[in-house]
Amino acid sequence: MGDLPRAGQLPAAVGASFAGAPVLITGGLGFIGSTLARRLVGLGARVTIVDSMLPGAGGNLFNVAGIEERVRINISDVRDPNSLQYLVRGQRFLFNLAGQNSHIDSMRDPFTDLEINCRSQLSIMEACRHHNPDIRVVYTATRQQYGRADYLPIDERHPLHPVDVNGVNNIAGESYHILYHQVYGIRTTSLRLTNTYGPRMLIRHPRQTALGWLIHQAVAGARIDLFGGGTDRRDFNYVDDVVDALLLAATDPAAVGEIFNLGGEPVTLRAAVETLLEVAEGGGGCRIVPFPPERKAIDIGEVFTDYTKIARTLGWRPTVPLREGLARTVAFYREHWRHYVDEG
Amino acid sequence: MGDLPRAGQLPAAVGASFAGAPVLITGGLGFIGSTLARRLVGLGARVTIVDSMLPGAGGNLFNVAGIEERVRINISDVRDPNSLQYLVRGQRFLFNLAGQNSHIDSMRDPFTDLEINCRSQLSIMEACRHHNPDIRVVYTATRQQYGRADYLPIDERHPLHPVDVNGVNNIAGESYHILYHQVYGIRTTSLRLTNTYGPRMLIRHPRQTALGWLIHQAVAGARIDLFGGGTDRRDFNYVDDVVDALLLAATDPAAVGEIFNLGGEPVTLRAAVETLLEVAEGGGGCRIVPFPPERKAIDIGEVFTDYTKIARTLGWRPTVPLREGLARTVAFYREHWRHYVDEG
Repeated sequence: MGDLPRAGQLPAAVGASFAGAPVLITGGLGFIGSTLARRLVGLGARVTIVDSMLPGAGGNLFNVAGIEERVRINISDVRDPNSLQYLVRGQRFLFNLAGQNSHIDSMRDPFTDLEINCRSQLSIMEACRHHNPDIRVVYTATRQQYGRADYLPIDERHPLHPVDVNGVNNIAGESYHILYHQVYGIRTTSLRLTNTYGPRMLIRHPRQTALGWLIHQAVAGARIDLFGGGTDRRDFNYVDDVVDALLLAATDPAAVGEIFNLGGEPVTLRAAVETLLEVAEGGGGCRIVPFPPERKAIDIGEVFTDYTKIARTLGWRPTVPLREGLARTVAFYREHWRHYVDEG
Repeated sequence: MGDLPRAGQLPAAVGASFAGAPVLITGGLGFIGSTLARRLVGLGARVTIVDSMLPGAGGNLFNVAGIEERVRINISDVRDPNSLQYLVRGQRFLFNLAGQNSHIDSMRDPFTDLEINCRSQLSIMEACRHHNPDIRVVYTATRQQYGRADYLPIDERHPLHPVDVNGVNNIAGESYHILYHQVYGIRTTSLRLTNTYGPRMLIRHPRQTALGWLIHQAVAGARIDLFGGGTDRRDFNYVDDVVDALLLAATDPAAVGEIFNLGGEPVTLRAAVETLLEVAEGGGGCRIVPFPPERKAIDIGEVFTDYTKIARTLGWRPTVPLREGLARTVAFYREHWRHYVDEG
């Protein structure tokens, strides 16, 4: 677990920007945040992780196993404006990844979603404005903000039709970031992530991502229930590719004030599940079942994104094919199952 | 002041829908809310007004002079979820107009704007969902949500580029309304208002609308400072036309779940000011001055909207020309100046 991820596709100059740099990561014990922290430690950054360890969310101390002594871990909640006002000071970069990511939970408890994804983001922007206006900020938004597709693939100009409270609040959270650039000159970038997967994602329960739960079932050898026909196409990014995008966005001046889609090769959900079952060798198979009503009401149908803008502007492309990424992911959970399913 | 506005352009059947109907109006002591309340009283509705009388906002008891005995006035704040949960029960219609409308204030105190325009709207939708799911809701949004125009006139498919915190929060507030229709079947409609003017608007200070302050200056005989060249075009709606749109939206099933622009004939700001000075006869003239920096940062340039969708779907069109509307407005403030400027 002490090994640090390879630098991926990044030019050496990008990595060099982080050597010795103070970096704050909100949500840094979560899936993407911890993978980013591991990469940044390898690049010599001085990483501070903020995480609330909110029960049921993605924070997991095992995600930083092997780098615990090389990062500063600050347990606090982005809903606490005072801790953030202190922690942003002196940082060169802020990767603002903390969020409530469960669409289902956002409908059951919409006010908590609002506090985390909307009000706290405004609070973080105010903290940067007043206490560190020179900070470089990268925010992670979601392609869920687009909702059902008017056309495919979805580019950044596609209208936003959020289909759940989480989508509404994420749009507001992203908008504050872009607004604080336009009005106050804070150097912000938003990346709209598609389905990100890989080692360290939350697979304990089905409330956060469909893919995390599918991986859980495949590794556990359980039969997978595929809602609807599985014929809708989606796109997937392996987490190391997403980390590349975060580092590129943080260092390229052309990214300032911009919103970029990530994205990948579209495949049907059924094909993705079949690939997963093949690499898991010996899962419990797959059956088609009807949508449960509360999921159907917020399902978005066929969705995949156009990532031409980030490819042209920052030179980013996904590099890890789905089969290879799923194989690495399954191998990770086979080895570390207890840290992601049994405990906590 | 006891006279009730004429029914405007509305078909008789629309007016008849409100006879005896229980109607709740949030922000009902404000400019548009009180004009709507006056019309609804004339149609025989049983009107309950909710207003916070927040200092500096548009609430003014004189706005309901002459109908005080025919409406129920409930002073409470939409930020108080308990009062709304009680008040929505048994209502057939909710005109949800309460909002913090000052763009400048939203930048100075972004959290108050968030609480009123974002969190409270979610709270009102939750109240409807749990306590009166059959209610018919019309929400007033703003063309400010579009921000700077990618193309003109702006139709409902134009991307939203909010240029201030108020715009971000209003988008969230509107989105909750549309979402609660899609997910829970609450019958909601959103009208995106352009510059609305007329008797009973707030003209006391310049923080809420530019036009209100221009009217204040014209009636007071002060010299008007026009920021920039005044060459940008805007569109304006007289308040009686906006009330027509609210009543049409509340009664036509084709409006359910929909967003509609209002809009009018585009004119340059300079032409609008010249018309205002002509009808005010004896204002202090007009001079061009540079933009103050804090206003320039959130100025949106030339903006006017395409209202084809509501014209085709609901048969709405603006009927009061700018000169006539301004003449009525100036006459109103000449008669009632002290209630809008000197007092309070």
